[in-house]
Amino acid sequence: MIETLDVAVVQMNSTENKDDNVARAIELVELAAAQGAKLVVLPELFNCLAHHRTMAAMAEPIPGPTSRTMSELAARLKITLLSGSICERPPGSDACYNTALLFNEAGELLATYRKMHLFDIDLQSGTSIRESEYFAPGDGVVALETPHGKLGLAICYDLRFPELFRSLAAQGIELLLFTSAFTQETGRAHWETLVRARAIENQVFLIASNQCGRHAADMVSYGHSVVFDPWGECLAMAGEEEVVIFATLDASRLRDVRSRLPALEHRRDL
Amino acid sequence: MIETLDVAVVQMNSTENKDDNVARAIELVELAAAQGAKLVVLPELFNCLAHHRTMAAMAEPIPGPTSRTMSELAARLKITLLSGSICERPPGSDACYNTALLFNEAGELLATYRKMHLFDIDLQSGTSIRESEYFAPGDGVVALETPHGKLGLAICYDLRFPELFRSLAAQGIELLLFTSAFTQETGRAHWETLVRARAIENQVFLIASNQCGRHAADMVSYGHSVVFDPWGECLAMAGEEEVVIFATLDASRLRDVRSRLPALEHRRDL
Repeated sequence: MIETLDVAVVQMNSTENKDDNVARAIELVELAAAQGAKLVVLPELFNCLAHHRTMAAMAEPIPGPTSRTMSELAARLKITLLSGSICERPPGSDACYNTALLFNEAGELLATYRKMHLFDIDLQSGTSIRESEYFAPGDGVVALETPHGKLGLAICYDLRFPELFRSLAAQGIELLLFTSAFTQETGRAHWETLVRARAIENQVFLIASNQCGRHAADMVSYGHSVVFDPWGECLAMAGEEEVVIFATLDASRLRDVRSRLPALEHRRDL
Repeated sequence: MIETLDVAVVQMNSTENKDDNVARAIELVELAAAQGAKLVVLPELFNCLAHHRTMAAMAEPIPGPTSRTMSELAARLKITLLSGSICERPPGSDACYNTALLFNEAGELLATYRKMHLFDIDLQSGTSIRESEYFAPGDGVVALETPHGKLGLAICYDLRFPELFRSLAAQGIELLLFTSAFTQETGRAHWETLVRARAIENQVFLIASNQCGRHAADMVSYGHSVVFDPWGECLAMAGEEEVVIFATLDASRLRDVRSRLPALEHRRDL
């Protein structure tokens, strides 16, 4: 990977209003770039966070309005931009996907990743979430070489499935971009532990952007967007409010961790 | 699994002196049983913790002196006993293994597990550890049905390899017995995060016994033996001293976690 990389994580409190959300995202990404960030990560479903039924009804193709706007933003600011995820409906398709989009500093779409694990849960608060009723799962793991290093992508509930991250690690990723709308209830219990564990066990930098605050449909997100280094040290962590946090990733840290504790070489076929 | 199970975790500061260590282990296991524990877990290499060269020179077969003593102890106290691990040399073999032994309340050897991942690291403190120079790796994952529930076994450095625990989860384990001599340096950075992550992502009770304090050959262990429930809640945690900690496992908690968040059913072949 590149020797040093200035990154920013945008934590948002997205609503049902797409125009508002996209305008707010642009504002926060501009702020991040003005502070020198070369790679910026937005949260899951940043352009519209609502009941899955509502989101599915407002789904967009790629390219589409949101992806074109974010492409232009990346190009104008000359940054690499993970524009969180959006609800995608391919042209002519009945299926919706929860899809992350990665743009390079020329605004080119480098990769999309469709969330592979869909979130079906009954929260103790009484809220039930059934993502699989309205969304279809993706079927491909996404790792790619970029000028910044080899990146992997994952979304929210994927976090509970270590095998996805091991598959990315086996492909040699150095940096994991993670976009999320982790609930407050499960976040309090699991967010920091699981995000940090994925960084430690795969010896990667991990940039995790989360939604925060109260949304439509009684959903509350946990915030605490975070950047961990490959030893699991926290480089930056947000609170529960809308905010941009910053960190500088140093490739020598990754080399040092992997050479002192070559755990990735000790993996066995089980 | 059984509806409720009283467990104890013995945290030890083992030395090079086998007689002392075994006597101390007996004392602490007797204390645990006197307090009502029906399942007791000892730490890795409880009967002799020294440089790997020293341990290899003092290796024992199974059955052998240590295993016979621990079998008798389990039978006398009518407990299920994970007698940590010991350095095993099979009769006529040149190879040594780091082997965990599980006895039932009749003193029968239910299972052995040979550590699959060997610990080779250069600590920042200057200490280098090369377990693989003196030990051979095991080659089998061990899960088994017992009257207490379906158990899986793992040892220390195995913790960094989530695929081992996923393999155990795929076999249906409800309770993970983990025996360790995690160093203080790596423990401070990784112990609680990784142990808790294994409990959360596999939705199992996890009983982790660790060595503590200073040993021969400048090794210092982290302590903090711990019991997590399947939601990752801490039921008991030790400090850094020799101690026995207790917890009661409640099967209804496991059923509740798995029914509210059926993540184990959402695994995909990757």
